[in-house]
Amino acid sequence: MTERSVTHATFRIERTYEAATPEQVFFAFADKASKRRWFVEGEGWQIDSFEMDFRVGGIERSSFRFQGGPQVSNETVYHDIVENQRLVCAYSMTVGEDRISVSLGTIEISATEGGTKLVYTEQGAYLDGHDNVAQREAGCRELYEALAVELQRNRNAA
Amino acid sequence: MTERSVTHATFRIERTYEAATPEQVFFAFADKASKRRWFVEGEGWQIDSFEMDFRVGGIERSSFRFQGGPQVSNETVYHDIVENQRLVCAYSMTVGEDRISVSLGTIEISATEGGTKLVYTEQGAYLDGHDNVAQREAGCRELYEALAVELQRNRNAA
Repeated sequence: MTERSVTHATFRIERTYEAATPEQVFFAFADKASKRRWFVEGEGWQIDSFEMDFRVGGIERSSFRFQGGPQVSNETVYHDIVENQRLVCAYSMTVGEDRISVSLGTIEISATEGGTKLVYTEQGAYLDGHDNVAQREAGCRELYEALAVELQRNRNAA
Repeated sequence: MTERSVTHATFRIERTYEAATPEQVFFAFADKASKRRWFVEGEGWQIDSFEMDFRVGGIERSSFRFQGGPQVSNETVYHDIVENQRLVCAYSMTVGEDRISVSLGTIEISATEGGTKLVYTEQGAYLDGHDNVAQREAGCRELYEALAVELQRNRNAA
């Protein structure tokens, strides 16, 4: 029988994207192809599925595995969307049969001098010792670096 | 145009229910009629709707108004359910047209000497100045008092 426990923790990441507009940053969350590139794909990861229904009450589901490891799944529900300004979503992560966390993520987007500031706040519940906030924060920081690459790519393609 | 802002805050409520078992406390969350009595109904409140699909990925929706005031709605998504032990859900609240908050709620249930301990942790994002953590915590404390009355009622009916 699994020993049950919950650890709650919050972290905040601030990242400024030079030469990007709030509209371009928001697009990278709202457009399925763009989101897939920076949020789901990655060196060594096999994507098993990716669906996204970007609206309040809509669900985003992705499943992937790293170098033949167990399936990792993310199920996200969009609770609040303010175009070019804000997203609030809740997501749970599972690895194989284990639900490892449920988190509330708030993304705030605002214009700054010569670019766009993104503030990400994650309020998480880490379940049964399967995950922890340090690991999650590190993973999210990598994602927001991948977003910088995606924004550059979209600018080059324009 | 609405001035956008988000305030993040966490609170925790511990409440011991004497003479109740974890199964009885869990039942009051899992059973639609019981949940409606303590969670939705209340003196002076008109219930416009209440639906509940108690399973992981399922949704609970309630709409109500206080003495002819604006409609208040709660939309809850169940992310994690461990029978008799734990619930993790995310919920958003709206008043009229305004979404006032999105929160992650964790309910932990455990047997204690002669009763059951419930620990509720809420990690909230309060939107655009429409609500605040002190008010939310006070509201939740009232709900967990109403749960005590419901548990007594269910014992009397047994």
